[in-house]
Amino acid sequence: MDEIEIDGARLWVSLMAMAEIGATAKGGSRRLAGSDEDAAGRECFARWCREAGMSVRFDAVGNLIARREGRDPALTPVAIGSHLDTQPTGGRFDGVYGVLAGLEVVRALNAAGHATRHPLELFAWTNEEGARFSPPMMGSGAFAGVFTREHILEQRDSDGVRLGDELARHGHLGEGLGHPLAAYLEAHIEQGPVLVDGGQTIGVVAGAQGQRWYEVTVRGQEAHAGPTPMRLRRDALGGAAEMIQAVHGLALDTDDDACATVGQIRVHPASRNVIPGEAWFSVDLRHPDADTLAAMDQRLRERLAAITDRRGLELAIADFWAFPTTRFAPELVERVRAAAARRGYAHRDLVSGAGHDAVYLARVAPTAMVFIPCEGGISHNEVENIRPEDAAAGCAVLLDVVLETADQ
Amino acid sequence: MDEIEIDGARLWVSLMAMAEIGATAKGGSRRLAGSDEDAAGRECFARWCREAGMSVRFDAVGNLIARREGRDPALTPVAIGSHLDTQPTGGRFDGVYGVLAGLEVVRALNAAGHATRHPLELFAWTNEEGARFSPPMMGSGAFAGVFTREHILEQRDSDGVRLGDELARHGHLGEGLGHPLAAYLEAHIEQGPVLVDGGQTIGVVAGAQGQRWYEVTVRGQEAHAGPTPMRLRRDALGGAAEMIQAVHGLALDTDDDACATVGQIRVHPASRNVIPGEAWFSVDLRHPDADTLAAMDQRLRERLAAITDRRGLELAIADFWAFPTTRFAPELVERVRAAAARRGYAHRDLVSGAGHDAVYLARVAPTAMVFIPCEGGISHNEVENIRPEDAAAGCAVLLDVVLETADQ
Repeated sequence: MDEIEIDGARLWVSLMAMAEIGATAKGGSRRLAGSDEDAAGRECFARWCREAGMSVRFDAVGNLIARREGRDPALTPVAIGSHLDTQPTGGRFDGVYGVLAGLEVVRALNAAGHATRHPLELFAWTNEEGARFSPPMMGSGAFAGVFTREHILEQRDSDGVRLGDELARHGHLGEGLGHPLAAYLEAHIEQGPVLVDGGQTIGVVAGAQGQRWYEVTVRGQEAHAGPTPMRLRRDALGGAAEMIQAVHGLALDTDDDACATVGQIRVHPASRNVIPGEAWFSVDLRHPDADTLAAMDQRLRERLAAITDRRGLELAIADFWAFPTTRFAPELVERVRAAAARRGYAHRDLVSGAGHDAVYLARVAPTAMVFIPCEGGISHNEVENIRPEDAAAGCAVLLDVVLETADQ
Repeated sequence: MDEIEIDGARLWVSLMAMAEIGATAKGGSRRLAGSDEDAAGRECFARWCREAGMSVRFDAVGNLIARREGRDPALTPVAIGSHLDTQPTGGRFDGVYGVLAGLEVVRALNAAGHATRHPLELFAWTNEEGARFSPPMMGSGAFAGVFTREHILEQRDSDGVRLGDELARHGHLGEGLGHPLAAYLEAHIEQGPVLVDGGQTIGVVAGAQGQRWYEVTVRGQEAHAGPTPMRLRRDALGGAAEMIQAVHGLALDTDDDACATVGQIRVHPASRNVIPGEAWFSVDLRHPDADTLAAMDQRLRERLAAITDRRGLELAIADFWAFPTTRFAPELVERVRAAAARRGYAHRDLVSGAGHDAVYLARVAPTAMVFIPCEGGISHNEVENIRPEDAAAGCAVLLDVVLETADQ
């Protein structure tokens, strides 16, 4: 493989060129799924793919698939992908990096005149962000059989516009949905602070956290803040504050991979001099191991119940949403780890906390991801940033794994 | 004093009759300050006072003053008072009980043909509740020199209606504001659960809590709930939850009289899967002893700062409002205690947590209060309720203290 190498500068130029489509004043990009900007971004990518000798088609939910044939027509493709749509005030790299890193792999193979045994396919999945049309990770979910074509196309944005109509308007609706893949590889910015904090260039992604979301309601007794002694209070917020501590403690007591977040809280009647009679808060628990997540769920219920009983309150815990844990293919993950080590990049194993198209693809194909650091761990923001040398490093690791997998 | 006794049934009938003025469907009363209902309530009370042989006048901020002359025209009056205005969905007893208990004392004296040495004055203070016009305890505050006449009359409700115009419209604006009183006595429902909890009939009110109100802002780092490990988080709500625990602990660690309430809380950005970057909450600290309250203030700042530093957060504590501690006149308080004991009523000393007209009057006259239990400690609510026997007991204690004070 000595003669095949990616061109970091070429990759960076493509990233900056794509960022101009839907560019925002603060240096980010806005290409909401199905919008004119999203369509323009995908057309630009399709043109680059054709210029790289690939065929381009759209499937029945608008996933863009660019194909480079391999030496053995009987083999299933090795796929590389991510998404080109963005948050309303998104950055230049979330999703885009993985799509254009895939293109740079193909350009590098072209430059070296190398034909792989397996065909290669580049995917730009429809509506990963879920910002304009819900849910997120639509195209990859549909490809993996999680959503039907009909369900996807019928989704409407807040103005009532149908996603199917938007895709058709841009000529981005084709035939077929889902086909066998030999492997699926996705490079992505980390969207978290772990690599920056640890000084690593490459994140070897072992899988994705399972998630359980809850809504917790605590009821006590609304009463006047003045004449009610502390010992006679049944303060719903006092209970909730202790519960929030317990929720965070639950993750801290588990292990380094456990996460627990309370992102929303409300009290009633919300008056300065009235002891809250009711408190409501959200809970988001995450862990990469299904058994550990189930144990966290159990301990959450036990700890909140204990606080409730001790304080003479009432408790209701509603299950709001859940997403199972994902383990990527160990053989592919090891190839990512070995490639990073061979190239001398500081690297570490980690687990994806955010959702990615790869999480759905892992249900239907051997899957792995390569993470690179993003500045301050900040994403879904116009200030999202990465270093060109990290972009090149991640792409080089991707190339190595593609070659090893597609030439098998 | 054997031959002078209050008539509990007569008092109860008056309470029930007054409750019909502005009666609500759920059994409460609505007589917002300055409204037609409030004016009708005061006119009814004025008629009852005239029927009891008293003269009735209004002062320059609309306080209603009914006077019964004493044997010695050189002496200053012993005053009894409270208010007839209510919350928007108020109960039948808050304020009203104290006014009508004063009237029942006069009726009892009349029935016994007893003339006191000091004249007696019954006060129905203007706008105690502060529900329609802010601030609360207006009439008593103006009488005590806390507010000017001009300031009071210029206050407007949410529709822009001026309080002075409302009082003038009802013919309830007179001359003079403030005059010397030999004593001020106020009977009131407790508006808290202490007497009910302890099984006492009479609360001997030693004074009123001082209050300090704050607004606390905690700043951390907004971040994605998935990819951000617990150890790298600067969770503003995590800090706030620990602070709320510390605020409550501060009161619990002080003594039984200390109160600490967090009644309002907000977080930003308030998304289920985003670690809150900012949290805001209110704090209400109360204690009857000024030095202890100052020490609580100091410890609040120390404890919140310690939590902030340990968690790598930022903290801003804004002073929002404060009200000094009040100690009632020890000699008068002892008379309340002795009267309850003499009559065999279970009683206890306590400190008022709520604001009352007596708290302002204590600045200009020797003052004491008599509390009676209210059902479940519930007030400012249409279900507010008391037992007729408790109403009679409190009125009997009031009679004893009036006689002892006015015949000196």
